[in-house]
Amino acid sequence: MDHLSRQKKLAEALQAEGLDGFAVTHPPNLRYLCGYSGSNGLLLVLDERRIFFTDGRYTEQARQEVRGARVVIAKGSLLEAAAKLLQRSRSARFGFEADHTTVAAAAEMRKTAGKRVAWKPASGLIMRQRMIKDADELRVIRQAVALGAAAFEEALAAVRPGIRETEVAGRLELAAREAGAEGMSFETIVAAGKRSALPHGRASWERIPRRGFVVVDSGVILRGYCSDLTRTLHVGRTRQQERKWYKAVLEAQLAGIAAVKPGKTAAEVDQAARQVLRRLRLDRFFTHSTGHGVGLEIHEPPRLAKAQQELLQPGMVITIEPGIYIPGKGGIRIEDMVLVTEGGCEVLTPVAKELIEI
Amino acid sequence: MDHLSRQKKLAEALQAEGLDGFAVTHPPNLRYLCGYSGSNGLLLVLDERRIFFTDGRYTEQARQEVRGARVVIAKGSLLEAAAKLLQRSRSARFGFEADHTTVAAAAEMRKTAGKRVAWKPASGLIMRQRMIKDADELRVIRQAVALGAAAFEEALAAVRPGIRETEVAGRLELAAREAGAEGMSFETIVAAGKRSALPHGRASWERIPRRGFVVVDSGVILRGYCSDLTRTLHVGRTRQQERKWYKAVLEAQLAGIAAVKPGKTAAEVDQAARQVLRRLRLDRFFTHSTGHGVGLEIHEPPRLAKAQQELLQPGMVITIEPGIYIPGKGGIRIEDMVLVTEGGCEVLTPVAKELIEI
Repeated sequence: MDHLSRQKKLAEALQAEGLDGFAVTHPPNLRYLCGYSGSNGLLLVLDERRIFFTDGRYTEQARQEVRGARVVIAKGSLLEAAAKLLQRSRSARFGFEADHTTVAAAAEMRKTAGKRVAWKPASGLIMRQRMIKDADELRVIRQAVALGAAAFEEALAAVRPGIRETEVAGRLELAAREAGAEGMSFETIVAAGKRSALPHGRASWERIPRRGFVVVDSGVILRGYCSDLTRTLHVGRTRQQERKWYKAVLEAQLAGIAAVKPGKTAAEVDQAARQVLRRLRLDRFFTHSTGHGVGLEIHEPPRLAKAQQELLQPGMVITIEPGIYIPGKGGIRIEDMVLVTEGGCEVLTPVAKELIEI
Repeated sequence: MDHLSRQKKLAEALQAEGLDGFAVTHPPNLRYLCGYSGSNGLLLVLDERRIFFTDGRYTEQARQEVRGARVVIAKGSLLEAAAKLLQRSRSARFGFEADHTTVAAAAEMRKTAGKRVAWKPASGLIMRQRMIKDADELRVIRQAVALGAAAFEEALAAVRPGIRETEVAGRLELAAREAGAEGMSFETIVAAGKRSALPHGRASWERIPRRGFVVVDSGVILRGYCSDLTRTLHVGRTRQQERKWYKAVLEAQLAGIAAVKPGKTAAEVDQAARQVLRRLRLDRFFTHSTGHGVGLEIHEPPRLAKAQQELLQPGMVITIEPGIYIPGKGGIRIEDMVLVTEGGCEVLTPVAKELIEI
């Protein structure tokens, strides 16, 4: 990963914003900017210098991982250590991550740095950079997607009436681990039968019933990058109505993908998928947005939802995942990861979408 | 779980603080107060009324889970929906979770609710309640600890030279799943050989070497409650120096446990463990605190560290986990979960602590 270019680009953006520096603490932003993957860190990005602070637990890890910054091991609060350093500098206007800094932490930061430092909310700057994935990132994301797909195949092989949802999740997660995943990007969803009508039905102690839909939604983390994949299977023979529902969701998902193109807004893609379900009078069962960005975090901008005017750009990686949830009956969701390209998009997820009956 | 008593206790605490209500959004606090386990929720605790807000994805789940509150499905921002309701009430002073609300979210909240509502940082109120576990919680925590211990035994059976750290983690996690865990309470640490000198060495793609320490630190989530367990094994025959190091850490851990008693400060327990390592001139390798509270979150108050003046009380559940990390050589950590009782403490973790050579 080319951390130095990212730091430089941020430093330039800071200048354009009239900021003398930036205190970065959100772990995915730290990983993005300097490679550090631990839990407690603070990167001060100044015009010419970068200083990374962490605590004694991470001395060795910081030494191995941090690129382009001097490492300082602080005793006590990292904010305090950084603020002390700022007191000595002539700089006065600093950016901070308002959407990742708590009110309590910000109060401490302001107090320690003193009145000479003015703190400005500025985290959008890093997210705007992160939204467009570079070649190194895309390489890892492709690997993560492939790994997540292979792990899903294990779950598929495990699903049968009588097995617990947690065990299906466990098989999937073990396969992910054996293939080298660092972990899962969110709590694995295995929701069978009536539970499939819960859009976020984390795998439970319930057993897969003799018939009904089974929603499997999972993602892995590989070298920091997340994958995200949903497929819906059916245990037992489907009825005509169920096939119609499945077909409707698949059609909506394909319409969403077809709408992905540079220059379109996120809302337009959401509308494209939603419209299919509206025409079939199923849109009231589609109770969430159509998708989201994916990268170092499982949910990143852009958000593909109503009123989101963000323009799609080449290099964005997003999910397209419409679903319907019919209380008491069941639910269906189909999700791929999609890369926005110059000419339109490329579906990254290599898993078939025809309805599978088990 | 007796959610209604918890809500009532909080409402009483609010009165004592001169607050007219409290807007709760931190997921573990929501689960504690009303049973909701989803990701997007807001509980308004007023003097006599409780109102729970969530979005359309969680309609069904909120209906099944939420206790003691009217459920409102909001379109768009939950804060906005809650703030609109507050505009109609006569109430004027509201608590919010300053240590879990970002600067950006707080700004939105203030703007939407208008000038008639004064927002006061108040999340310590819920944490003070949560710090003392009730009988229902202790029952689940004991089950989580037992489940985590059983899963560790699987990892122990898997460790051998040549196996990848991720695969050991995968075996442990599958066993946890099969026993009914909802997930892991943090990213499983399997750190072998020189990597054992990383206090937070998440399981990597590296293979277990022919000889060296292997730190395994993992926890499960059961019905929302976390377990936390660390043991250090040794692959191959230990040398005398290594046995000395292990014995030192074990002695420090036992000294920490022996110091746990109502009325002692968190700092005193930390000191008791640290002193053993100081006497053996190993304290400079003990680079973290001695422990932390565990419950609905893997890290909760109290923090067992220098200068922490929190008094231990019966019903607190904490970890005792000293460790030493010798760069280039390896590391050792031993961690139990401990319940503070009237007369002292009870070690909850049922796993032997003698050094195991594999």
